[in-house]
Amino acid sequence: MQLLKKKILENGIVLGDDVLKVDSFLNHCIDTKLMYAIAQEFAERFKNSKITKILTIETSGIAPAVFTGYILDVPVIFAKKSKSITLDKSMFEANIYSYTKMQYYTINVSSKFINRNDTVLIIDDFLANGQAVLGLIDIINQAKAKLVGAGVVIEKGFQGGGRMLRKEGIRVESLAIIDSMSKGEIKFRNEEEEK
Amino acid sequence: MQLLKKKILENGIVLGDDVLKVDSFLNHCIDTKLMYAIAQEFAERFKNSKITKILTIETSGIAPAVFTGYILDVPVIFAKKSKSITLDKSMFEANIYSYTKMQYYTINVSSKFINRNDTVLIIDDFLANGQAVLGLIDIINQAKAKLVGAGVVIEKGFQGGGRMLRKEGIRVESLAIIDSMSKGEIKFRNEEEEK
Repeated sequence: MQLLKKKILENGIVLGDDVLKVDSFLNHCIDTKLMYAIAQEFAERFKNSKITKILTIETSGIAPAVFTGYILDVPVIFAKKSKSITLDKSMFEANIYSYTKMQYYTINVSSKFINRNDTVLIIDDFLANGQAVLGLIDIINQAKAKLVGAGVVIEKGFQGGGRMLRKEGIRVESLAIIDSMSKGEIKFRNEEEEK
Repeated sequence: MQLLKKKILENGIVLGDDVLKVDSFLNHCIDTKLMYAIAQEFAERFKNSKITKILTIETSGIAPAVFTGYILDVPVIFAKKSKSITLDKSMFEANIYSYTKMQYYTINVSSKFINRNDTVLIIDDFLANGQAVLGLIDIINQAKAKLVGAGVVIEKGFQGGGRMLRKEGIRVESLAIIDSMSKGEIKFRNEEEEK
């Protein structure tokens, strides 16, 4: 998505070889017009998938998810991060390993909100190692719902999560795939190679 | 706002005399069409205020804030909850007392995103004791920005935050004000008395 890539080049800040700061438009200050355009792109790519629910994870996934949900006219559920497993049967829970924090955290979704009749699209802001998406897929599987795929705003292609998920046969649509950020220079994957 | 009040009566769950669970449409599963209608109402009420930024607080404030920001064509900043004061000069920070958890927590906003030229609208999902809004106002004051007021989805009128803020001369626009929930029965304040 050209508009997004332009914004990343203009306003993204590369820290080291693998951290991209996009807090000026994506995950602290939100460019609402860009976010709507991002959602339109997700809605277009998944328009034939008969989606009934969108699943995301707090906090930064909420903005792209709610705009996409609005355009597709479906509810959005956001998984909550909790400190420990509650063993509450009314909750679906999954453990996610954070490579950044080098520890596991638990996410949960009330079992009231996803069931076997649902066709679910995952939306998130970043895809790096793919652990968050795996956790959300775990929850969708517990609910016996159907997974359509994952829509991701920015994929860090060099961190392998996208490759791993696609190898598992999961449809991943990333609006910008970054193949390298070494020496502060952002290199995007060509659109033709993205699939 | 009649559509919202109807939804609260149909889907809200009263726990005890003062807890209202609205996780089926507002703060876990999000009814995206209702959320857009809520944002249209905020945008209408504040349309003459020359707003340049919307400020909210993670997590449940994000959905109503981003739709309102989209309609008013302004960016949305969400304050992040952090465990302790970082003494980072590039951050505005405020302490908020949570009556529910009976402890203070800190919120922060990067000083890059709000400045003296901004006219800021606060948006949040709930107003109870008003401590979160006070914390956000503290940050707006630190930035020397202008405060327009606060748009709140549901105000628990019996908990005094709205009264306290209005007494301070702050414009508070709540789309549903609940005056009582005793014995599980939700009583809304009349529209005429809301101001």
